[in-house]
Amino acid sequence: MALIVQKFGGTSVANTKRIQNVAKRIAKDFDQGNDMVVILSAMAGVTDNLIGLANQVAEAPDRRELDVLLATGEQTTAALLAMTLKTMKYPATSLLGFQAEVVTDCNYCNARIVDIGTDRIKELLEKRNIVVVAGFQGRDSEGNITTLGRGGSDTSAVAIAAALRANRCEIYTDVDGVYTADPNVCSKARKLKNISCEEMLEMASAGAKVLHIRSVEFALKHNVLVYVRSSFNEEEGTMLVNGDHDMERPVVSGVTYNKNEARITLKKVPDQPGIAAKIFSPIAEAKINVDMIIQNTRAGGQTDLTFTVPKPDFKDALEIGRKVAEEIGAEEVMGDENIAKVSVTGIGMKSHSGVATKMFSTLASENINIMMISTSEIRISCVVEEKKAELAVRSLHTAFGLDEE
Amino acid sequence: MALIVQKFGGTSVANTKRIQNVAKRIAKDFDQGNDMVVILSAMAGVTDNLIGLANQVAEAPDRRELDVLLATGEQTTAALLAMTLKTMKYPATSLLGFQAEVVTDCNYCNARIVDIGTDRIKELLEKRNIVVVAGFQGRDSEGNITTLGRGGSDTSAVAIAAALRANRCEIYTDVDGVYTADPNVCSKARKLKNISCEEMLEMASAGAKVLHIRSVEFALKHNVLVYVRSSFNEEEGTMLVNGDHDMERPVVSGVTYNKNEARITLKKVPDQPGIAAKIFSPIAEAKINVDMIIQNTRAGGQTDLTFTVPKPDFKDALEIGRKVAEEIGAEEVMGDENIAKVSVTGIGMKSHSGVATKMFSTLASENINIMMISTSEIRISCVVEEKKAELAVRSLHTAFGLDEE
Repeated sequence: MALIVQKFGGTSVANTKRIQNVAKRIAKDFDQGNDMVVILSAMAGVTDNLIGLANQVAEAPDRRELDVLLATGEQTTAALLAMTLKTMKYPATSLLGFQAEVVTDCNYCNARIVDIGTDRIKELLEKRNIVVVAGFQGRDSEGNITTLGRGGSDTSAVAIAAALRANRCEIYTDVDGVYTADPNVCSKARKLKNISCEEMLEMASAGAKVLHIRSVEFALKHNVLVYVRSSFNEEEGTMLVNGDHDMERPVVSGVTYNKNEARITLKKVPDQPGIAAKIFSPIAEAKINVDMIIQNTRAGGQTDLTFTVPKPDFKDALEIGRKVAEEIGAEEVMGDENIAKVSVTGIGMKSHSGVATKMFSTLASENINIMMISTSEIRISCVVEEKKAELAVRSLHTAFGLDEE
Repeated sequence: MALIVQKFGGTSVANTKRIQNVAKRIAKDFDQGNDMVVILSAMAGVTDNLIGLANQVAEAPDRRELDVLLATGEQTTAALLAMTLKTMKYPATSLLGFQAEVVTDCNYCNARIVDIGTDRIKELLEKRNIVVVAGFQGRDSEGNITTLGRGGSDTSAVAIAAALRANRCEIYTDVDGVYTADPNVCSKARKLKNISCEEMLEMASAGAKVLHIRSVEFALKHNVLVYVRSSFNEEEGTMLVNGDHDMERPVVSGVTYNKNEARITLKKVPDQPGIAAKIFSPIAEAKINVDMIIQNTRAGGQTDLTFTVPKPDFKDALEIGRKVAEEIGAEEVMGDENIAKVSVTGIGMKSHSGVATKMFSTLASENINIMMISTSEIRISCVVEEKKAELAVRSLHTAFGLDEE
């Protein structure tokens, strides 16, 4: 008997037939005596449809109202799953974000969870109810509806698991675990049995789409046991663990890529103190997340400054860049949307040298030009031409010995 | 400057184009300095689609969860209208039922409003916000989501108007007022400039679909000025007034029909005290509303008992009737779904005799058989064969002098 939090993604609840399958899976675990809390995403495609609807009335929809609109997606699946379970004679109750007391800040469309009151959930669990919580949504301190941003249901699940001190948090998705690389790109990719939270975090930020990055932060911070598996089969998935779990593992655990960034370069920027702040303050104010930043020194007290931003923010960032360039007297602003970031990640890097060299030489041997480089303790990322991303992933996967035997 | 509550029905917000038209209409009234509270229905067809979705997973969906599901319909339109207004640079804020503090009892799918806390709405109005409230929905005392039943948005609007002591409540719909008969059935029907709440109440219960019956009860009880008009044109609508508003009006104000009832007859019931209670208690327990009841005395201490119920409840009521018949020793139970109730309504009836006679003779002259009769102070209803309903309406409309000149 355990307290299990299960999260089902959009493809797992894409229609009523699949919702019925999900209900059967939950019922099985419930019948074994477990207490069950289930977090749901919206049906696949619904969130995009709702955004499309909003765009019919507003080019830039008001973010508070967009959250009210988007929250209907998870409300729908939560209600449908609860009524499915009830029809199967299982006690079930749906809770919306505000009812489950998921309290967030008031940053609409991308809110962060600040607190979870567990009274209502615990009360229902004590009555042996299956508690079905609408993921992705919460409320701010004034009772306004907020949403957690794309993939936010993962975060809902891990945060609720942490607040309830659940025995584990199972993330059911349309892939059956975390792979050494995207199997769609790299046919030799292998499923990982375990992965450390730190690696998962780096891989998620480097483009792996299995888990919402903030959910991994939550898991790491609150020591939640997260298990990623498929809702479409019974195969073993991937367990997220804290710390270095496997002494014999290779130096690199996975190769990821991200095509969702764009590059902006300010050329011939006067090399003076305070210039970086002048450039990045207005970008931060526009709530645009800058990923990589590189500064090259030129002759004559000038420098080139290059940074990457998410593609959807590219136009806004470029406009800001041009304004700032004029103010500070930079010569030229250039933008490039056709880039990809390719990363290798592995907790083993900490104790192994030569990973960067191997990465650069592998890319060079495939004639792939490196535009930018950034590193963390357990990750190395290179920006390359977008069209060479897949080739880069495959060659790195082989070079670091990750190919399936 | 006035405080105006406006309600827009499902056809008025059926798509984003229409929502934009609604926004323009609201903006015009706002620009004239009025404080605006807007109540919305779901887009036409959406509630039925949601019920269809529920029926894919459950034959009889859990009512609590059905309310969670159905509430998404009005949530969607409220968010869309608020963001439309904001894009037009008008200050607007959407409130869901629970945020607008619409407190109901816990009778899911058919809840009654017990209280409306107006603090949040008033606070927003003081900041000159257009307040957009999701109609049809509320919350019970425990914070569960409830809905008010079909047409409940009318009730939301009138109840909120009453709580706010609004100057008037405008109900925008797809018809441009209250007619002497359904114009689809009776081409000679005329629009009424005024109608008393009492008449509207009787006409609504007799089948007129313009207003939700409970909204009229609210208007009558709380003295709310209700104005019914079309959202598709600028024509004058119909004003609901309290009391006898027009001394010169004809005896009968309108002719209505209702095809949504079915008839059940228990034959040869022992004519003993307590029998009626034995029959109608279990029906009331099943939350089935009985409309008309007629008892005919037979020879030999036996009686026939006939009553009508809403068509959706016909099967359940028939089953209950059969069980009870066995218990009490009634000979036979018969059911008939092919009936219609035709009614004439008018506050003038109070002071005029002969209305019933005229009704019966008119129906007789058209060879329409009367199966059941019921009367109130200002209404007479006859149950006739379903297929003769339209003929009955037209002939009564002419007989009572309501035809357009």
